Order: sequence, then C-alpha cells, then structure tokens
Amino acid sequence: MNSDAARESGQAAYNLACELFPINRSITGPGVRQTLAILTREMPELTTHAVPSGTQAFDWVVPDEWEVREAYIEDPEGNRIIDFKINNLHLMGYSEPVNCELPLDELQAHLYSLPDQPDAIPYVTSYYSRRWGFCLSHHQRLSLKPGQYRVRIDATLAPGSLNYGEVLIAGDSVEELFLSTYICHPSMANNELSGPVVATEIVKWLISRDRLPYSFRVVFIPETIGSICYLSHNLGVMKERVRAGFNITCVGDDRAYSFLPSRDGNTLADRAALHALQHVAGEFERYSWWDRGSDERQYCAPDIDLPVASIMRSKYGAYPEYHTSLDNLDLISPAGLAGAIRVVQGAILAAEQDRHFKINVLGEPQLGKRGLYPTISTKNSGETVRLMMNVISQLDGRTSLLEVSNRVGAAIWDIYPIVLKLVEAGLVDDLSLTVQPSNI
Amino acid sequence: MNSDAARESGQAAYNLACELFPINRSITGPGVRQTLAILTREMPELTTHAVPSGTQAFDWVVPDEWEVREAYIEDPEGNRIIDFKINNLHLMGYSEPVNCELPLDELQAHLYSLPDQPDAIPYVTSYYSRRWGFCLSHHQRLSLKPGQYRVRIDATLAPGSLNYGEVLIAGDSVEELFLSTYICHPSMANNELSGPVVATEIVKWLISRDRLPYSFRVVFIPETIGSICYLSHNLGVMKERVRAGFNITCVGDDRAYSFLPSRDGNTLADRAALHALQHVAGEFERYSWWDRGSDERQYCAPDIDLPVASIMRSKYGAYPEYHTSLDNLDLISPAGLAGAIRVVQGAILAAEQDRHFKINVLGEPQLGKRGLYPTISTKNSGETVRLMMNVISQLDGRTSLLEVSNRVGAAIWDIYPIVLKLVEAGLVDDLSLTVQPSNI
Amino acid sequence: MNSDAARESGQAAYNLACELFPINRSITGPGVRQTLAILTREMPELTTHAVPSGTQAFDWVVPDEWEVREAYIEDPEGNRIIDFKINNLHLMGYSEPVNCELPLDELQAHLYSLPDQPDAIPYVTSYYSRRWGFCLSHHQRLSLKPGQYRVRIDATLAPGSLNYGEVLIAGDSVEELFLSTYICHPSMANNELSGPVVATEIVKWLISRDRLPYSFRVVFIPETIGSICYLSHNLGVMKERVRAGFNITCVGDDRAYSFLPSRDGNTLADRAALHALQHVAGEFERYSWWDRGSDERQYCAPDIDLPVASIMRSKYGAYPEYHTSLDNLDLISPAGLAGAIRVVQGAILAAEQDRHFKINVLGEPQLGKRGLYPTISTKNSGETVRLMMNVISQLDGRTSLLEVSNRVGAAIWDIYPIVLKLVEAGLVDDLSLTVQPSNI
Repeated sequence: MNSDAARESGQAAYNLACELFPINRSITGPGVRQTLAILTREMPELTTHAVPSGTQAFDWVVPDEWEVREAYIEDPEGNRIIDFKINNLHLMGYSEPVNCELPLDELQAHLYSLPDQPDAIPYVTSYYSRRWGFCLSHHQRLSLKPGQYRVRIDATLAPGSLNYGEVLIAGDSVEELFLSTYICHPSMANNELSGPVVATEIVKWLISRDRLPYSFRVVFIPETIGSICYLSHNLGVMKERVRAGFNITCVGDDRAYSFLPSRDGNTLADRAALHALQHVAGEFERYSWWDRGSDERQYCAPDIDLPVASIMRSKYGAYPEYHTSLDNLDLISPAGLAGAIRVVQGAILAAEQDRHFKINVLGEPQLGKRGLYPTISTKNSGETVRLMMNVISQLDGRTSLLEVSNRVGAAIWDIYPIVLKLVEAGLVDDLSLTVQPSNI
Repeated sequence: MNSDAARESGQAAYNLACELFPINRSITGPGVRQTLAILTREMPELTTHAVPSGTQAFDWVVPDEWEVREAYIEDPEGNRIIDFKINNLHLMGYSEPVNCELPLDELQAHLYSLPDQPDAIPYVTSYYSRRWGFCLSHHQRLSLKPGQYRVRIDATLAPGSLNYGEVLIAGDSVEELFLSTYICHPSMANNELSGPVVATEIVKWLISRDRLPYSFRVVFIPETIGSICYLSHNLGVMKERVRAGFNITCVGDDRAYSFLPSRDGNTLADRAALHALQHVAGEFERYSWWDRGSDERQYCAPDIDLPVASIMRSKYGAYPEYHTSLDNLDLISPAGLAGAIRVVQGAILAAEQDRHFKINVLGEPQLGKRGLYPTISTKNSGETVRLMMNVISQLDGRTSLLEVSNRVGAAIWDIYPIVLKLVEAGLVDDLSLTVQPSNI
Repeated sequence: MNSDAARESGQAAYNLACELFPINRSITGPGVRQTLAILTREMPELTTHAVPSGTQAFDWVVPDEWEVREAYIEDPEGNRIIDFKINNLHLMGYSEPVNCELPLDELQAHLYSLPDQPDAIPYVTSYYSRRWGFCLSHHQRLSLKPGQYRVRIDATLAPGSLNYGEVLIAGDSVEELFLSTYICHPSMANNELSGPVVATEIVKWLISRDRLPYSFRVVFIPETIGSICYLSHNLGVMKERVRAGFNITCVGDDRAYSFLPSRDGNTLADRAALHALQHVAGEFERYSWWDRGSDERQYCAPDIDLPVASIMRSKYGAYPEYHTSLDNLDLISPAGLAGAIRVVQGAILAAEQDRHFKINVLGEPQLGKRGLYPTISTKNSGETVRLMMNVISQLDGRTSLLEVSNRVGAAIWDIYPIVLKLVEAGLVDDLSLTVQPSNI
C-alpha cells in the first residue's frame, strides 16, 4: 500500500498489458489460451480449465470454439483495404467463414462503423447467431467506391472448449475473498486488459504477504458465458465461503474512479469497496445496479446472490473510447493502473480487517498508567488521544471495525493498528479469535 | 385505461352528477334514498341497506331522520327572500322545525354567511345538537333591513333510518379491494357528487372486465356516521379480507391531483395509490394524515386499521369553493372526472398486479435462444432489452411487482405484460399461483 | 415550569453559585467537602460518601487526596507576583509540594499561559502524574524579568478520600430518572458551578411536587474518577432501574442551548432532552457523540450503556472562556440558569409522561355527547378540536406519548392534560396503570 510499491506494481501491470495487447481474444479460442499461458508465467499458482463446447451451464450452452487464421477485404483494384492482421477489431467477433466476391451495396450490410466517431473502429460481436462482418472507421467506409469486393474469412467455428484460469490461495480461514476479471476481448486496453493485469499484480501481492486471514479465489474468465460456467461448477462452495468479492474491470485509465454495487447494495463487498474508494481515491463516481454490465449480472442474480461489487476507474460505457480501437494502450497508464491496485488492496484490507473487537473494562480505561495518554491535562491536550478514545467508545463487540472506522471517519487500515495496540495492552479482546475455536 | 374510454366514462360521470345535483341529501332522509335509487338504476348490482334511528354503532347512535318539506324567510314586506326550494344550501342541515316571526337582530343569531366570500352561500349542519338556521350570501345578509321577519321550516326530525348502498363483486379470490364514497351532501359538486359518480363508473368498468383477481366491495354511504355504521356491521370480515381500499372524494375538478395516506402510511393502498398518481397524474399534492377529514378517520382508527388511502383531485378544504354554493357543476368537468377515473383504475391495477414472481434459472437467462434478445451485439444494442433484464434481475420471489416497478421506474401495468411474457416462456414462476392451491 | 417560578429559581441558583465560586475544588480534597456541606444545607436529602484513596474502581484507582495551604511565586525583588489565594486557577491542579528558588528560564517549564487569550489564566491539572506548575496570563508571563524566583507550594498529596453527594427520592415506581453533575473544578462558573446549582434547584422542585411517578437519583460527583467510582458501586441497580438520565453541565450562560446524545443516540433520555430543547429553547446546537467530553463518556461506555444525554447551554470547549479565568460569575446569569432549569424540567416531564395510552372505542369517539366537541359544524369549526382528534388518532397503545407529541408537533406537557381529560371521560385507557399490577 505504500506509494513506491504501488508505482512499481502499476508499471509491471502496464508492461504486461503491452505484451497481452495484440492477442486476438474472444470468449473461446487460441487467443484465450495464449493469454492464460502468459498469465501462468506471471503466476505459477494459476491453474487453467477447459469446458467442452456443448456443455450446459445453467440456461446456457458453451458455444463452438472460434479460430481465425486470416480475414481481409480487397477492393475492386485488389488492394487489401481491411486486414485482421493489422487490427483484430476489424473482424466481427465469431464471424463465420466466407470467401466470395460481392458488390459494395451488398457488402455494406456486413460493415460496421461509427458515424459519431469517424476515426474509430468499433468492436462488434455475434456470439450466438451465425453472421459475418467487418468493422472499420467511418472515414474509411465513406471512401469505399462502387465495384466488386473480395471478402475472405478463413475461420473455424467448431467444437472445442471454453478456457479460464483460477488462482486459489489458502489463508488462515477457509472463508474466501473473491476477485473476478475477464479475458475475452481482443485488442482493447481499459476494457479489458487493465482487469487481468491488475488482478495479476494483486495475486503477486497476496502471495508476498506473510499471512492471509482469508483464503482467496481469483478467476480470469470470459465474460458472461465464462462466469456462468464458473458458477455452474462452483456455486455451492462459493455460497458457503465467499465473504466478499470484487469484479475488476476497466481499471487502467486515470480519469476517474468508479463503484458499482452488488444487487443487494449493502454486502461486505459493497462496504469494503466504498471504504477503499473513499480513503484511497477520495472522489469517485457511484453507479447504481441499473448501470451494471459485467459479471456482477451473474454473481448477483437471484438465488446466486454472491456479495460482489465492481471497482473501476472509467466505467465501461461511460467513456467515449469504450468498445472501439481508441481504447488502446495510450488510454491506460502505469499511474492509472497503480491507483486501481491501491483501491483493490484497500478493499481487500477492509474486508479482512472488518472484525469484531470488544473493550474488556467497564468505563473508559485509564490510558495514562499504560503510557497511552498524555499525563498533563491542558486546554487542548485531549485532541491527541481523541481518535483512540473514539475508537474505544465503539468497541462494544457488536459493531464491526469497518463500521467503527466509518463512524470515526478514518481508514480501517489506520484504525486497525490502534486496535491491535489496545489488544496487546490487554484492554481489548479480539472476538474473531475468541470465536474461532468453536468453529473448528 | 385508454383515453377514449376514459373520456366517455368522464362524460357519463358528469351527466350522472348533473342528474343527482338538485337532490337535498343529508346523512339521513328521502334525499339519500332518491340518490340510491338513481345509483341502483346505473348499477343493478347495488344493494341498499337501512339502519334504524337509535341503533348503536360503536360510540355513536344513528340519529333521527330529517325530512324537509319547505323552508323560507320572508322580509318585513312579505317577500320570500330566502327559499330552500331555490337552493337547498340555504337551510342549515338538520334544522329543527320552526314557524315564527322575529326581529332582524334576533334572526341574525340563526344566519350564517361568509364575509370573505360574500357571494357564496355556506354549507352548515348541526347533526347532533338541535338548532335551526339559514345560510345566505354575505351580500344578501348586509342588505337585510330592520323589521319583523317571518321564518318557516316545515321539517320533521323523527325516527327513521340511515340508508346506504353496497356493491359486492366476486373475483377469483375472496380477498377484497375496497372503495368508499359518500352520499350525504346536498347540492355540491366536487365535494361530494364527484365521488359517487366516479365510483359508479369504476363499478361499471369492474363488471365489464373479463376476470377479477380480487373481489370488490364498494360502498356509497353517509360520511362519518355511515362509515361507522358500516364498519360496526362488517369490521370482522373486512379485517380478514380487505387488502387495499381507496376513499374516493373530491374527484371532479381538474386543478390538481391529491393523495392522503392511511394512518399507517405504507399499506398496499398507499403504495398503489401513490404509484397510480405518479404514473397517471405525474404531479400531485401529497397530504399528510394530519390533513385528513373524511372516512379514513374511521377506516384507519386504532384497532380498525384498514389499509385505506384517499385519492382526490382538489382536496376538501384546500380549494376556495369548498362547502359553499360555489362548489357547483361548473367547478367539475368530464375531463376532471375522467382523470380521477384513470387514477383509481391505476390504483386498482397496481393493487391487483402487485404479486410475487421468481426467475427460475440461475444467472441471467439466455434470451437470445428464445427470441427475446437481439442476436448481434453492438455498442448500443444492450439498451433495447435493458428494461426486461432489469425486471428479471429483481424477480427474486421476495420483491413484489409494485416494488420492482418502482425500482425500475416504470408503471406496473407496463411491467406486468413483460413478466407475463417471461412466465409464458417458462423463465419465471408466478408465486401467487403456486401458493393458491395450499390456500384452498 | 411557569416563568415567574423559573425566574426565582434562576436567581436562587445564581446566588448559590456566587457562594460556591471561591472554593478551591479538585477531584479530591477539602474544597469538595466544603462544597458538599453547602449543598447539604440547601438539600437536607443529600447524603455524602467517601471513597478511600487506593480503592480500585473499574480500570482506575482513587488517587491520593490533594490539599493546598499556600502557593505563590516571588519575583527576584521578593514581590509575590502570583498567589493561589488571589485566584486558585494560578496553581496547577494536583501540583506536588515545592519550595525552592530557580532562575526564570527553569521556571518557564512550570508556567502555563495562553498566547491567544493573553488576559486569561488557563485551568491546568495533572491528576495522574506528579508535577507542579503555575498558570498565569500571557501578559503577565511576558512581563517576567530574568532572575531568581522563589516558588512555594505548601500542599499535601496523601491518602484520604474522594467525596461525592447523592440524593435519592422515592417515587411511585422504583424505576428511576437520573441526574448527574460535577463538583471538581475550582473557581469557574459556566463549567462547572452552573451544573450543581441547577441540579440543586431541580432537586428542590422535585421535592416540592405532589407526586413523582418515578424515583430520582441525583449525584454531585467529581468528573470521570467520580462517575467511575459511583458506577463501580451502583451499576447493577442503575442498569435495572434507570429509564433516562441527564448530564447537567455548562448550564449557566445565555448564549446558546446545546444537546449531546448518548452513545446509542435514541434512548428515552435523548428523546426527552431533544423534546424539551425543541419546545422550551426552540433553537439549539446539536452535538454528536464525537464532541463528548464529560461523564457521558462513562455512563455510555460499552456494557455500561446507561441512557444518559447531556443538556447544556454553551457547551464545554465551544465557548472562548472555557477552562480559563474568564469563565467567571459575569459569564453566567440568573436568566441563563433559569432557561436551563426549564429545559431540565421539560426533559424530566417528557420522560415521566412518555407513557402508553389507548383509545377504547372503535372509530372516532363522539366527542359531542361528552361536551368535548362544538355541536355546530361550520367551515372552520373543525380546527378547534383538531389537536384532540389528532392525539386520539395516535392512541393505539403502541405509540408512546412522546412520539405522539412529536407527531402532532406539540409539547408533551400540553398533550398530557388532553389525554388525562380523555382518560377521565372513559374514552382512553392508561396502559401504564393497567400494566402495573402485574409488575407487583
């Protein structure tokens, strides 16, 4: 959580994003596997899983795998004017193979561009309905002349698998904190590469810590179908164990911090994320459940009801470059990623430190005889121990430390050491510890 | 609920108000019976009841019946300057008979006028203390010259009965929605004739509907003593059956919409009325319990505690013509009545449709394979199905549909068809139906 | 509660403050005993208690007793420039004895002054660490010339006792209302003498009342160590009996009224104090728990959790003269004290009258036949009985009278007589009375 470490971590995240950027990811296919291979190099703890096409997952079926070898359009003069090799956004995601010539007016029905952002190549997919299409800048589209165009998509849509990665880290308790991020978008930076690279840095930080009070579950999955597959295999254990989870998406730029709640809106995940955003970021955008659009849609669906909130910088859909070629490596920065890393660390600490403590003397303790209080009383001397006394006044055993911290208006990671000092002085009992034996 | 039907219904209500206007109603007497006879012609389902004078009803006793044959004042020259036949408001309600001559200064003690509204004849009653009196415009009062006046009230105050009407309509459930309106004021239009004529149109609409999920209880009663009598006979069954009720009063003008809550303030009646006012009227005045003044005083009294809220246009006491001769047929309009009809219909639909539904798949359903979702994903395509997805995300079986509608910010009668479509697609269970068999 | 009585009471309180002002009080010592002796003269009901030095009280130990005979500083010319006899604030509270000469620069380490308030002598203590020191105006300090100063403190710090006073008044119920005020500050007026003199007037008022529904416990104690000692002896019985308590401090000036909540924030004490401040004072400062600084720190500590709120005029720490020689008899006034007396009386009445009542007829009662309602109904006549009807509408047996009063927007002492009239008329049951037999 210190700023030097955060700066280094942000730079490492940025470097990893640069390496992952060119890969053609989709919800299935070799791009996902390449991505997972690089992530495994970074995190040997990562295990990868493959779910065969056709597998039923809740209301969904894992689709065929999509593999692209080549895709381009040649103009009437034979110039290759659009080429998947140059920018993988040119090809509509899950395009079926095609190899034909057709006149411009027929080709138009397969072209996608953004008149309002004429320089941007849009990102378009058609996962569950067979189509083919190309995306291009509106400027380029306007420059197309009538004539016969040759279109070639050398792609396969065939049974294969959906791949995802999972890091499980054992802590003192089997109860878990959960992180989810996605790896299913081609060359775009804030949405999505910022998510997996920040999550990777968080995993490294977790591994480096002396001791983890909770176990961790971190998943790198294709959005929607990936979270649905993951839940269909792990829902039981997750409902038992997950105390708080965070969806990590769009965490790379430095224009804003953003929060999107769980459906419940007041889970530990919500409270921890809000606390971290308030004390690390200060100002942030607070979105509502109605603004959702990522895997919280699955994690918080009725009867799944996991405590998962989203931590973001500029939210998907809320910045102009979203889902276009303008969401590139210039949009994100080491500093932007570092800020997100610090907020996620803060949310994790908030969730971990949100324990119950209880003062064990009646009335205020005499801090003076324990060297915890100035022994001379002057007009202003009370101020210096006010925070400690305020914290003590709230340690009634019923109020969790996150609520205590919010009441006294300080970050829980600044309050926690004060409480530990009181525990050492024998004035305060850690009820979590007291309770643990009976849990075994 | 379509606007043509509402316009026709508002015109029919206005025509009925014109027919009922001249009748001299009070809390008892032939005027009430005449009114009920006309209402029976409109609604053959209406049954009428008579409660004998002297009957105890809770803390009250049904008073003697009041019948007026003739009432006038002649000035010293023998001109009939005030005559009940010209305007029944001239005679104080429940005036005892008198036949005498007296000088102007003695007569003054029996005259009522409004200095602030010098053109208006006030409406004054003395139900529970024997008095006599005449009401006149303050202009007329100032023109009276000294001298002997002849006063004649040919009226009877004698044992008879209190009359009221009741419509019971059987629906699928024995649980009831309840409407109450009053028929005890002489020639005044917004307060009160708008109430019974709107209630009559609602009854016709209910009868015309294919199927009613709830049964209905609609009463046309004298205010206060009438609701007390009605409750004293029906409280047990009403407490068992009434899920929501609406007091329909002052629903004829077109200057405002108004809401007055039940004492509890958060019953289904309150929520349904507020929802209807918000989505039909848009803007409306929101009164508090402390502004009450009609039969909610009885319906919501301690230990009666029925869920009854008031739906109004310009509320009694809140418009200058209230309880004067200026509250006449010019003050109300077919459009004003039609607006009230639509709000009451909306409140009834909101109460009926406020059921519990539950999505029966885990995670978001795949709408695409059921033809409920566009199959191509572009930058903006999500918007078109957002409302349906928002509704689905709330169908957890615990949140009733009215609350779901309020959360997504739409009228329940626009959400209900979406939910029925999901029920037909087998994605959503109607918990009300599931529960019903066990109720039988 | 009438204003003549309040004025007299305020004057009596002021006179008593003048008599008590010169005494050198501290948390122990003869000054406390002198003060208690004068209070016993005023209230023969007062009993005094002594707790020996060295007694353990929760986390604390009663300190040695401090007695001062003489304390002064002489300048290099032998002039007695600072003398405890002239103002007891000159001597740091609990200074140890000293008798020496030392140069000015060494003396400076033992001097306390306020650069921002150069005319004021600050009030400084060092109860739990052995030190000596003198307090003086910053003007005087700046005028000190280099040279040898003679310092003499003839004081004893030796085993003795901590003294406090207690008034127990038996009422109809063993349940208690509790008042606490402190007697441990030397010559300062708003903080603290206003507290014990207002409490004395309240005790006289309580004794003068015909009948007390609750018993009373009023304590005059040294702050912090005194309340800790008192609680360590009485906590069990107090937790059983105390329904509401008020800490009476800083109640002498007339610049503001102030409220500081219990830790819980919504006990009967909080509600009664807020009600009294609203209806007696109108405007007042509303402090939070984080602004606390008096014995509520002990009364509301975790597991002690007594319902104790603070009623103040200008709060300790919130006025410039606080804890200096400027907090003198000019700062407080008979009118200031009288205002506080009225608020405390109001809070006591609010707590006493906060009982449960229930209307025993269904529907609105017919007030007319009981002479409680005007028998003629005109356009405005309803207003005159509206308050009574509003109260009746809330007497459901579940809503306590303080909440009823807050809902109808009137002082409980104005509502209570209305309710008693309804009880006499047989319309309302006093549930507190009904319940009492079963308590015996």
